[in-house]
Amino acid sequence: MAGGAVGPVRQDSAESVRISCLGGACIGRLGGEVSGEQPPKWVYDFAEGSRDMRELLGGKGANVAEMTRVLGSDRVPPGFTITTEACVAFMREGHEPDGLEEQVAAAMRRLEETAGKRFGDETDPLLVSVRSGARESMPGMLDTILNLGLNDAAVAGLARATENDRFAWDSYRRLVQMFGNVAHGVPGARFESAIKEVKGRAGVDSDAELDVDALKTLVDRFQGLYEFPQDPREQLQHAIRAVFRSWTGERAVHYRRINRIPDDWGTAVNVQLMVFGNKGESSATGVAFSRDEVTGVPEPSGDFLVNAQGEDVVSGVRTPRDISELAAVMPEAHEQLMDILRSLERHYKDMQDTEFTIEEGHLWMLQTRNAKRPAQAAVRFAVDAVEEGLLSREEALRTLDAGALEALLHPHFDHGDSYRVLARGVAASPGAAAGAIVFTVEDAVRQARAGEAVILVRPFTEADDVAGFHVSKGILTSEGGKASHAALVARGMGVPAVTGAQVAIDLEHDELRIDGEVFHAGDMIGVDGSEGAVVDPGAQLLEPELDERFETVLEWADRIRRLGVRANADTPEDAAKARELGAEGIGLCRTEHMFMAEGRQPKMRAMIMARDSDGRRAALRELLPLQEEDFTGIFEAMRGLPVTIRLLDPPLHEFLPNLPELRAQVERARLEQGDDMEELEQLLARVEEIHEGNPMLGTRGCRLGILYPEIYEMQVHAIMRAAKSLDEPPLAEIMIPLVAYEHEIEMLRELVVRVSSDYGMEPGRDFTVGTMIELPRACFVANRIARHADFFSFGTNDLTQTAIGLSRDDAESKFMPAYIEGKIVDRSPFETIDAPGVGWLVRLAAWVGREAHPSLKLGICGEHGGDPESIAFFDMAGLDYVSCSPPRVPIARVAAAQSALAR
Amino acid sequence: MAGGAVGPVRQDSAESVRISCLGGACIGRLGGEVSGEQPPKWVYDFAEGSRDMRELLGGKGANVAEMTRVLGSDRVPPGFTITTEACVAFMREGHEPDGLEEQVAAAMRRLEETAGKRFGDETDPLLVSVRSGARESMPGMLDTILNLGLNDAAVAGLARATENDRFAWDSYRRLVQMFGNVAHGVPGARFESAIKEVKGRAGVDSDAELDVDALKTLVDRFQGLYEFPQDPREQLQHAIRAVFRSWTGERAVHYRRINRIPDDWGTAVNVQLMVFGNKGESSATGVAFSRDEVTGVPEPSGDFLVNAQGEDVVSGVRTPRDISELAAVMPEAHEQLMDILRSLERHYKDMQDTEFTIEEGHLWMLQTRNAKRPAQAAVRFAVDAVEEGLLSREEALRTLDAGALEALLHPHFDHGDSYRVLARGVAASPGAAAGAIVFTVEDAVRQARAGEAVILVRPFTEADDVAGFHVSKGILTSEGGKASHAALVARGMGVPAVTGAQVAIDLEHDELRIDGEVFHAGDMIGVDGSEGAVVDPGAQLLEPELDERFETVLEWADRIRRLGVRANADTPEDAAKARELGAEGIGLCRTEHMFMAEGRQPKMRAMIMARDSDGRRAALRELLPLQEEDFTGIFEAMRGLPVTIRLLDPPLHEFLPNLPELRAQVERARLEQGDDMEELEQLLARVEEIHEGNPMLGTRGCRLGILYPEIYEMQVHAIMRAAKSLDEPPLAEIMIPLVAYEHEIEMLRELVVRVSSDYGMEPGRDFTVGTMIELPRACFVANRIARHADFFSFGTNDLTQTAIGLSRDDAESKFMPAYIEGKIVDRSPFETIDAPGVGWLVRLAAWVGREAHPSLKLGICGEHGGDPESIAFFDMAGLDYVSCSPPRVPIARVAAAQSALAR
Repeated sequence: MAGGAVGPVRQDSAESVRISCLGGACIGRLGGEVSGEQPPKWVYDFAEGSRDMRELLGGKGANVAEMTRVLGSDRVPPGFTITTEACVAFMREGHEPDGLEEQVAAAMRRLEETAGKRFGDETDPLLVSVRSGARESMPGMLDTILNLGLNDAAVAGLARATENDRFAWDSYRRLVQMFGNVAHGVPGARFESAIKEVKGRAGVDSDAELDVDALKTLVDRFQGLYEFPQDPREQLQHAIRAVFRSWTGERAVHYRRINRIPDDWGTAVNVQLMVFGNKGESSATGVAFSRDEVTGVPEPSGDFLVNAQGEDVVSGVRTPRDISELAAVMPEAHEQLMDILRSLERHYKDMQDTEFTIEEGHLWMLQTRNAKRPAQAAVRFAVDAVEEGLLSREEALRTLDAGALEALLHPHFDHGDSYRVLARGVAASPGAAAGAIVFTVEDAVRQARAGEAVILVRPFTEADDVAGFHVSKGILTSEGGKASHAALVARGMGVPAVTGAQVAIDLEHDELRIDGEVFHAGDMIGVDGSEGAVVDPGAQLLEPELDERFETVLEWADRIRRLGVRANADTPEDAAKARELGAEGIGLCRTEHMFMAEGRQPKMRAMIMARDSDGRRAALRELLPLQEEDFTGIFEAMRGLPVTIRLLDPPLHEFLPNLPELRAQVERARLEQGDDMEELEQLLARVEEIHEGNPMLGTRGCRLGILYPEIYEMQVHAIMRAAKSLDEPPLAEIMIPLVAYEHEIEMLRELVVRVSSDYGMEPGRDFTVGTMIELPRACFVANRIARHADFFSFGTNDLTQTAIGLSRDDAESKFMPAYIEGKIVDRSPFETIDAPGVGWLVRLAAWVGREAHPSLKLGICGEHGGDPESIAFFDMAGLDYVSCSPPRVPIARVAAAQSALAR
Repeated sequence: MAGGAVGPVRQDSAESVRISCLGGACIGRLGGEVSGEQPPKWVYDFAEGSRDMRELLGGKGANVAEMTRVLGSDRVPPGFTITTEACVAFMREGHEPDGLEEQVAAAMRRLEETAGKRFGDETDPLLVSVRSGARESMPGMLDTILNLGLNDAAVAGLARATENDRFAWDSYRRLVQMFGNVAHGVPGARFESAIKEVKGRAGVDSDAELDVDALKTLVDRFQGLYEFPQDPREQLQHAIRAVFRSWTGERAVHYRRINRIPDDWGTAVNVQLMVFGNKGESSATGVAFSRDEVTGVPEPSGDFLVNAQGEDVVSGVRTPRDISELAAVMPEAHEQLMDILRSLERHYKDMQDTEFTIEEGHLWMLQTRNAKRPAQAAVRFAVDAVEEGLLSREEALRTLDAGALEALLHPHFDHGDSYRVLARGVAASPGAAAGAIVFTVEDAVRQARAGEAVILVRPFTEADDVAGFHVSKGILTSEGGKASHAALVARGMGVPAVTGAQVAIDLEHDELRIDGEVFHAGDMIGVDGSEGAVVDPGAQLLEPELDERFETVLEWADRIRRLGVRANADTPEDAAKARELGAEGIGLCRTEHMFMAEGRQPKMRAMIMARDSDGRRAALRELLPLQEEDFTGIFEAMRGLPVTIRLLDPPLHEFLPNLPELRAQVERARLEQGDDMEELEQLLARVEEIHEGNPMLGTRGCRLGILYPEIYEMQVHAIMRAAKSLDEPPLAEIMIPLVAYEHEIEMLRELVVRVSSDYGMEPGRDFTVGTMIELPRACFVANRIARHADFFSFGTNDLTQTAIGLSRDDAESKFMPAYIEGKIVDRSPFETIDAPGVGWLVRLAAWVGREAHPSLKLGICGEHGGDPESIAFFDMAGLDYVSCSPPRVPIARVAAAQSALAR
């Protein structure tokens, strides 16, 4: 006999097959010829399995087994699973492994006994389905055959039993067709052409219109295409073999390549009794949720149809009835179903989404899974479940999808009739808004001041455009992804945005074109940033309802989490909002946005145009009181809490017009002999002078502070003045960006300490100085940098850009979509931290930084600070806090708690 | 008594003082009050020290001690050193530590005895110098006092002894002035104003014209400014104290801050007998080299003057005589000097550069150091020294400055009268050239074809300009540093270049302006890339002489080194040259330069302008035969050796016109209603489409290969065709650039293998596939990448850019100069590998890559491959080879040998 897998824990064997095969030579546990031993157990009845046996029984087999364990074998149509190991052995040996046929035959006998029917019976035949089920779902890739057990005689029995000739013959027609295609390799087109011909002769258009005689003709014609085995046992053997073979079919192999599923996992085969909800008025079929799937109200919900098949419920041909009505129609089955829903909830400790069939009064459960539900229902379930004693708080928190909670914090469109999608794009910043189209920041500011709701529409946005974000209700761009400038700034400010939308934006003619429809400035448009859609502005806007239940969940989370949660905020309004949402401080206050504000740009430009330090100082003197005012507002909003202020970071060119535009403008002015020529030329000269090929890697961050110390000095003056002016100042944490070398932070720390000593402010007591860790080199020398830093804040956006060598904007708009489609990456590394690369750098820096400076405070302020999976990573890496955009603060609180629970 | 430092190994104590003080609280070995113990040894006679005692005796003290050891105390003016520890104790206690005064007094007694003179003697006084000498040289920062021991009585003795009244009184005048300034803090201005007044009264302009009486008056006036101690012992005590105090002077502290020298090192104080070469006709002074310092010919060289002081030899007031004439004048001293030069060479195992004084027939050696010498002399010395048995080959190799050898491989200007520097710039690519100025690539190509020698003059260069490099004799830019595009390409091609020159280049008027002088296109100019100078084109050009001795040295190096040496070469000419210089293969053949070649750009542009894969394929079909031709040429040149070919790397926009220029051009064309409008607009649209904010981090490298597989396919076809066409093909190593993810290399390796199978070529047998490691992430996941790679080649240029987050061009032209000046970095990280950051990444990738794939071949092809210090690093990191530009191949061979010797 063949097949030497031994040992009681079978899923382990499957695993070792996989591992031993990875090396190339697939020998080992299945390879030996061990005579005299029992063949392995290839077949498991559903009652023998459980959800832990996924590797051996496949996903589907494990799921149906678990349900059988919970509900008993009289609630789940009985059947059995042929293991993935049998498939592996079949592939290796080219035929059924020893013992398999016998074990299948025995299982079939048990099934007949349980069902009280016989395979091939001419009055009420036992029918089974044969379905593949791999360890991971491979939708549509492997084969399935239904209604196995029918033959020329049994079909009549089925017709009698269901009192439905058409159903019986259509089932048989489907079996012969499916079987021929799947098990005998008859091309589908040959069946299709036969159907077409018969339909033509009958003068009907759809399959559903074919009558019993036509179906009989078809069965006949199909049996002419190949030899359909009338023996149900032979059908079963062929069907099992067909499923095994489908594992190595071209389609499946290709799918596995793309999805990186190992070839040697194999698939399991599930053989299950078929049940029918269309056997008359005591039969029914439906779907049921253990609670309302939209609101979470603790009442089961769902639909059903009497005397129907599952597809009738879904297809909408007949209008299903509400599940509550089942109580009147079939009171016993209804009560059983209600019991079952409660049992399943208790067992799975989550809200359930089930499918059921009632066959002649008997309730069968076909499927159960944790119910997908909108955020509001999820929160309601969590709170109710704790009140009901169903779950502990910890368990309840685990049921939440932290990322989805954001929906609770943004207005959203009613997805009713008024909701019409005009174009798709990237869901860049959640929430919804409608307003008048503006194509320039100037228009945005002017019209918003006049009280108009505006949507800023640009091909893409730049730092210059930030003033427009403040006043716009929504942002729409035709370029860029989730991490484009527009998306980042919009998320940071909580402004809904759709980026990279399939629209044409023609700034020359001030036109937005969508599928031939042309919108002009002033026309209304809707932006659904949660869905990534440009919508008809008539859609109804709903305000978010922040209910008590959500507050309750957040309070639990706060008691459980280790990780602190702060917000990234640049304005007093954002700071106040963040505090309201539970932020424990500001982890990133970007000072450059302050310089972008209206009325400040000319001063900033004067500073940059200055030829020397004195000129810069003069311009900075004018900016100082404004900057002081900014800080005072933020400090007031965050009184008593820490506020991390990043000194100026972006390259100076971001404050000047863009070079190609300016070049063109100068060219026009030259030809038209404009009179502002000299000023323009000067501006052009300066823009060209500070122009850099790769500004991301250029003169920015602390490099600016070292070249132009007067800028950082002004900022420190402003911070100290603001702090001095308040009774209850926050703990100012002054952050030096883009540090790569120890001496950068050393020099700039000295600058900060020197300036602040003018105000009697002392480091450690009145403020701290730290650095943003956002370059790979900084991670390697973090021990040296830590000597001069009170804290590190990981700037994971830039760290991702440099570690992987991809610029956020360029990657997301150019090649990242192709990378995700081609499965080179699972997700954009700007969305979830790239653990093997960027994540290692974070861990390294945390480790060597703390080694040199044990009390070093560690935080993270990149976009990843609001992503639940990344938050779990940072928690494990031992960081002290995460900082994210204000609307994501509640998400971070929940994600941090979930991470603490997972440890 | 104070000062508890104990233990015999005194330099260790100094070290521990330093370390214990770093923590802030400077307690420890010097802190205790240990009664009854002997005070530490604060004073060392020169005869007691050695060059290993730098930390205790300072650099100067250790050097004079070593020379005393070698030559005996009757050849080096005797004296003693007060240790750095005494200085540290003085600083701590605020006064001389216990025992110091006694030890100094004892040392003075020994000195008097040795010299046979007495301090303050009225006939022939003992004079000493008191000089500071820290562990590291701090030129001009610490104090020195000469002629100590003179007073109103002794000056007469000195005058008699030297038979030179003026000399004696001038010496005394200098002492009183220096002492007043240094030891008593009398402002220098007060002495100067006295001198000015006396000169005015005497009616002379310079100090040298002051006669004895005037000098006497001055001494008198000076003594009126403060109380000059007539007791020489008191002078000495004050002088020592002054040197100690100068360590904490503002100047020195500032210098240490900038140079990062710890404050607690302290300085040593050297007290040395003064000797005089101007005591008549039996006295002399001079400099002597153990061999000719220009040619290396094994004959001592040098100059001397009879009855003169050192400064007379240097100042050029009197014409010094050749050292060989000393044999006639003072045969005994000459013979002694020749002996000493030989001894010193033997001792230091290197050519020596010495200073000497003969005082009344007695030869004193004042200084010796390894002689700086040009590359040719260095090579000659190495070979001669081995022949003479002075050095082993290994020792001889160690005497070479590998980096300087490049000078032997380039033409150079004769630095005679014809050599006139017009402007300074960066020595970007060594060698010299003169030719006619051209401002455009088109002109360069046209005029070069007409046989003219041209110098390409541009503010900066871009990939577009590469065709111009091929045909130009030299390159001159006004922007960019040693690692600018111009510098890199020029070095790669061995074309002399000066970048970032202090010139104005006005492309609008085709003018090169230097200091007001205007050069037009066609005017002649000279470029000295070794010196970094724009020179008068009349300078005489000398061809390099590659002598046998250099070949000998290179052969030794080849026998010793472990590391392979390859060259970066993109053309058959470069490849041939590299092979001639000893390259063992090509480590980097950049295929994009081929597309820049004349006549190919339109085809390349057509490829980029194509809207779909078919259009690109059509354009690529036209490029295929050209690319095949390129490879055939290179392969022929490298027959039998490995050639690493990098598939297309740069972003496509580099093959199109630059955006701001094009924007301006379109603007002009629009206003002028040009008729090529449509084409221009299309071009602009495409340029805007592929424009990226940070192309370095954008769609380039393997990202191109994944988005446009047809490009890489064409390149692989060309490689395979070229390889098939040759009898003795090289080992083609196909390199995928910019890999960050395992699946990138996996997919592209599949592409390469698939295409090459069309030619019956098999990976492993006929070619290999590897990757460039140039992103931090790739280093972290190098084990996964190594599964699909036969080799790694570290692209340390890009790795430096991403690891430190600085773009080469932007950094070198914008902030790197300030960083080097401010000592934030010692050197540009693009010149020498940044060991703590970039270097770690290299070691990490080498380690985990080899762990996953033990036979993985490892090389490096960044600019660092030609830098000796970096080569040593790569050798230690276990790489298999370095690859550098052809002219640096000999340097790399020597550096690799030196590294092997250092292990």
